[in-house]
Amino acid sequence: MSTTLPTRPLDSAAARTVVAPVVPSRARLRPLGLDEVRITGGFWGERQRVNAAHTLSHILDRLESEGWLPNFDRAAAGTLPAGRRGREFSDSEVYKYLEAAAWELGRHDDEELERTFRAVVERVGAAQEIDGYLNTEFGRPGQQPRWSDLEWGHELYCLGHLFQAAVARERTRPGADDGLLLIARRAADLVCEVFGADGIPSFCGHPEIEAALAELARVTGDERYAAQAALFVARRGHDTLADIEWGRRYFQDDVPIRDATALSGHAVRANYLAAGAVDVAVETRDDDLLDALRAQWTRTRGRRTYITGGQGSHHQDEAFGDDWELPSDRAYSETCAGIASVMFSWRLLLSGGESAYADLIERTLFNVVATSPSADGRSFFYANTLHQRVPGVVPDPDATSPRASSSLRAPWFEVSCCPPNVARTLASLDAYIATADDRGIQIHQYAPAEIRTTLDDGRDVSLRVDTAYPSDGTVRVSVDRDADEPWTLSLRVPEWAEGAAIRVWSGGAVVETVSVAPGRADVTRAFRAGDVVELELPMAPRVVDPDPRIDAVRGCVAVERGPEVLALESTDLSGHGDVGEVALDRGSTPTEQDGRVWVDVARRAAHPGDWPYTQAVSGGLGETERVALVPYHDWGNRGPSTMRVWIPTA
Amino acid sequence: MSTTLPTRPLDSAAARTVVAPVVPSRARLRPLGLDEVRITGGFWGERQRVNAAHTLSHILDRLESEGWLPNFDRAAAGTLPAGRRGREFSDSEVYKYLEAAAWELGRHDDEELERTFRAVVERVGAAQEIDGYLNTEFGRPGQQPRWSDLEWGHELYCLGHLFQAAVARERTRPGADDGLLLIARRAADLVCEVFGADGIPSFCGHPEIEAALAELARVTGDERYAAQAALFVARRGHDTLADIEWGRRYFQDDVPIRDATALSGHAVRANYLAAGAVDVAVETRDDDLLDALRAQWTRTRGRRTYITGGQGSHHQDEAFGDDWELPSDRAYSETCAGIASVMFSWRLLLSGGESAYADLIERTLFNVVATSPSADGRSFFYANTLHQRVPGVVPDPDATSPRASSSLRAPWFEVSCCPPNVARTLASLDAYIATADDRGIQIHQYAPAEIRTTLDDGRDVSLRVDTAYPSDGTVRVSVDRDADEPWTLSLRVPEWAEGAAIRVWSGGAVVETVSVAPGRADVTRAFRAGDVVELELPMAPRVVDPDPRIDAVRGCVAVERGPEVLALESTDLSGHGDVGEVALDRGSTPTEQDGRVWVDVARRAAHPGDWPYTQAVSGGLGETERVALVPYHDWGNRGPSTMRVWIPTA
Repeated sequence: MSTTLPTRPLDSAAARTVVAPVVPSRARLRPLGLDEVRITGGFWGERQRVNAAHTLSHILDRLESEGWLPNFDRAAAGTLPAGRRGREFSDSEVYKYLEAAAWELGRHDDEELERTFRAVVERVGAAQEIDGYLNTEFGRPGQQPRWSDLEWGHELYCLGHLFQAAVARERTRPGADDGLLLIARRAADLVCEVFGADGIPSFCGHPEIEAALAELARVTGDERYAAQAALFVARRGHDTLADIEWGRRYFQDDVPIRDATALSGHAVRANYLAAGAVDVAVETRDDDLLDALRAQWTRTRGRRTYITGGQGSHHQDEAFGDDWELPSDRAYSETCAGIASVMFSWRLLLSGGESAYADLIERTLFNVVATSPSADGRSFFYANTLHQRVPGVVPDPDATSPRASSSLRAPWFEVSCCPPNVARTLASLDAYIATADDRGIQIHQYAPAEIRTTLDDGRDVSLRVDTAYPSDGTVRVSVDRDADEPWTLSLRVPEWAEGAAIRVWSGGAVVETVSVAPGRADVTRAFRAGDVVELELPMAPRVVDPDPRIDAVRGCVAVERGPEVLALESTDLSGHGDVGEVALDRGSTPTEQDGRVWVDVARRAAHPGDWPYTQAVSGGLGETERVALVPYHDWGNRGPSTMRVWIPTA
Repeated sequence: MSTTLPTRPLDSAAARTVVAPVVPSRARLRPLGLDEVRITGGFWGERQRVNAAHTLSHILDRLESEGWLPNFDRAAAGTLPAGRRGREFSDSEVYKYLEAAAWELGRHDDEELERTFRAVVERVGAAQEIDGYLNTEFGRPGQQPRWSDLEWGHELYCLGHLFQAAVARERTRPGADDGLLLIARRAADLVCEVFGADGIPSFCGHPEIEAALAELARVTGDERYAAQAALFVARRGHDTLADIEWGRRYFQDDVPIRDATALSGHAVRANYLAAGAVDVAVETRDDDLLDALRAQWTRTRGRRTYITGGQGSHHQDEAFGDDWELPSDRAYSETCAGIASVMFSWRLLLSGGESAYADLIERTLFNVVATSPSADGRSFFYANTLHQRVPGVVPDPDATSPRASSSLRAPWFEVSCCPPNVARTLASLDAYIATADDRGIQIHQYAPAEIRTTLDDGRDVSLRVDTAYPSDGTVRVSVDRDADEPWTLSLRVPEWAEGAAIRVWSGGAVVETVSVAPGRADVTRAFRAGDVVELELPMAPRVVDPDPRIDAVRGCVAVERGPEVLALESTDLSGHGDVGEVALDRGSTPTEQDGRVWVDVARRAAHPGDWPYTQAVSGGLGETERVALVPYHDWGNRGPSTMRVWIPTA
């Protein structure tokens, strides 16, 4: 598939003012920012509320108590390295907090948060060196020299997150006098000087700065940053970084990006890099690179992605496995990899418009991003297993957990990338709901929302989305303004939604009913105020089989309902039995009752003997019971349990 | 099960003179040493030949070229830490080489090997410090202090291997004037002083010294060493070592050994420790501890062991997973864990006599230990996957491979524990063939061999074993001496050998034919010279089902023949197809032809669509072909390939 993007660029002023994380200068779809789309409640609205009310302050408390924010004070005071705490990338968590807070301040005014934000920026700025360098781990007497450990040092990675924070601030508070954009630009200028065409011919072991520099170019109009991003992308894949136990694939330095066939290596790195490479391809009009990235996305989605949308099947190197290597029990499926996958998919969606990208975003949001935080927003899954065999241990609320060994949500981690990554994603989620193009509006994700924008021809459009999705499959989009000329409201029909229908109401009556197939359903009308387009998505539970090449889940099924993957949790079994001991009756149909999905499972008779590999094993089944499944994103919220997404069939 | 061992101890002189790695002072079975059992050819004889002819010199070459042996020269010259090479445990590889060479010298005289051995001992001895301390990584100016990093430093681990080398030397060349035993004793005396009851109340993160100290006590008669081993065992499991990301379970410090229910944590550590704990339990008459270890063995074998006998299902921490967590594709199944498991099983076999221990030893020897070395004895598997999805890359013969990322056998590793561990095991394998008790002789493993010993009542017994096992299932044991009184020849009937039979020949005629069940078959006779006991083991290929709780191989079968697990390798598929694309016809029976086992497999039709989780997947099958399986231990010998032990059924 060759993709030719519209050649008419957004004018750079527009690129600077759209209040969204990603504003390409060329794209098939134009992003709608936080001032144009507002989630007003529902599944995601509640999570945004908790994020604003609890998660941001929880993160700030930990940044202080862990010493990661005070590291900047020590840097400013000139006392480092004495007393420095945290890992080499801890600066980045402060920047992600700033980004989250900036988006949140773009959603609503909050004087206290604004004061906090400015205070943190001031502490960060005070640590910046005269030439723009900013990092608390490197460069001082007693520390390693600057840029001396590109494989593991994360200096450029940290700056990438700083730039993204500055972009968020500039888009939500243009020209704010807090100085964050200036801090970012001074650091970015230094990066361009040090790593430019005549500089160090290398790049960061952990991608992140690529997409950040591209966006900083878009928000500032300074093309040097985009050129530096392109340089970083082009340098990768030529065995530049040192070899390591897991090979240079770990940091995507084994093969040039345009020659890769699927994402591989460390799953967060791979997705961050792919997102940045899309930005570079778009800005440099490199359609070959863009096509390569689309093909990689397709293969990765088809062969290296869990049913939850999760990616990364190795704990050891937090990496993708081979095609079809998707173990449930050792699924790493890091929360940050899910977020990074959304970033990659979103950029491809803007560039090409295909609904499959939005499908994967939905799946990942509901089943990875929503799974990580607890209901109170103060603890998180770092890894997202699909099969828990042994009940976890409740983490000490005051302790810091190793990153992935906790089998229940934990308040903080030694490597704590996931909590602030979730926070910045939720705080900017409104920007992933809808887009516009020269024909009209596209709605990609369903949530109660208000959408107001101006179409390319200058007409103002105002919509309201009412829905209890995903509890209910009805999505009502009300048009609030008359239009003289037709325009197109485009609604995504998810890949799982066979049998969906659209009803168009006008003047209080249904004027049109259409069956719609998965993909995109376009309604083109000269809409009148009060017109309603109603999408009816089939929400009956679905029993899903895996591709037979996925060895880990052979002979199992999963149950989904709408965009949610469901799970069997021991909490729901009689006697809190072990989910390893049951099988699902393949003949029975899941039913819905009391807002839950129920299936019939049978207890498996114990295996005879104590050597597990024998001829003629009796696979007898015992009593059957009806058990309720839990949405996967809610598992582990009722105390230690065992859990499985893929259920063996009898 | 409570086990009461015979209270009559072997006299300590005997314990000192049996030429075997393990000579307990109390045991149900008495080990027969290298001077009593000699493997004369066949499957294992060939591997011993290659080990002696090629592997030992290959290892020594690498110890020199990698600088691990020269580290001792630098220590002696006082120039360390400058120029030190290798990981913190590299000393141990030199000691394992010495142990292997010592056993080999016990099997046959070899002047050149003897000279080499003495030269290496001299270089090691020159590095020993005045107080007995011996380690090239710690304790000098510019190095970490002695015993300052018990979690990771491996100082005691290295000494454990030194002691085992000295034990091997003393048993094969009692009183040799090379000084190795003195070097070991001086170091052991220091360990007892530093870590004794009033010393540092801790132990080594990597168990190994426990079993080594117990054996050093047995060979020297010095009870202090046994007491120190008991102290190390008793101290474990009380949160003494620092916590790490994977928890203290990693080094078996999470629960006291006698309270554990299964082996857990790092699989080599767990098995080495269990082996040492058996030694301690035997020597201290601690039957509760011994019973706990037996129960752990049973549960580990039943729920945490691969069909190959391999153990350890995590790459990340080289550790056991939870019960039933046995992925084929990410099987770590480290070669050293297989060897360590043999060490644990062997000690329990000696102590209790049950044939199940010998069954697991056989399975592990044929399918883990024999799998590691290439036919030329110069390259090795470190990890032993049961499913290779992507053909591996041929390692550079001059390079050093990361420990487990090589998907083909590699000549050497940065962590190169496996090659010398295989070498010492093969060089002492004769000692694992047979034992004696007060009733007669027990044969546990089948190989062409000569066995000569003196029974407890003073009678000399001489046997010859003729067999082409495992190619053929006939094992003929010929008795070479007349006996006036009856004695018992006890033959193990492997757990898989349903339908085995024994024929007794005397005077050229069959005098008795008996069907024998798996377990132990005893033939008690007043044997005459020329009598033959012929065991006929059924060698038809067996199709084996896994316990349904092993999620990773649900819906698959494996094929075994005799003690060998077979595998499907792409090399044998037409067009070198992908083993991921075939399914086995469950209805068809494997057949034997041309010395190979053949099965019918069908090509699976491609899965429709590119999202792998859908309703109503078509599982269509294409053409069928007859394909030969390969013994698992031989896979990967014909170049890069894909391979699977567990084959999906149609």
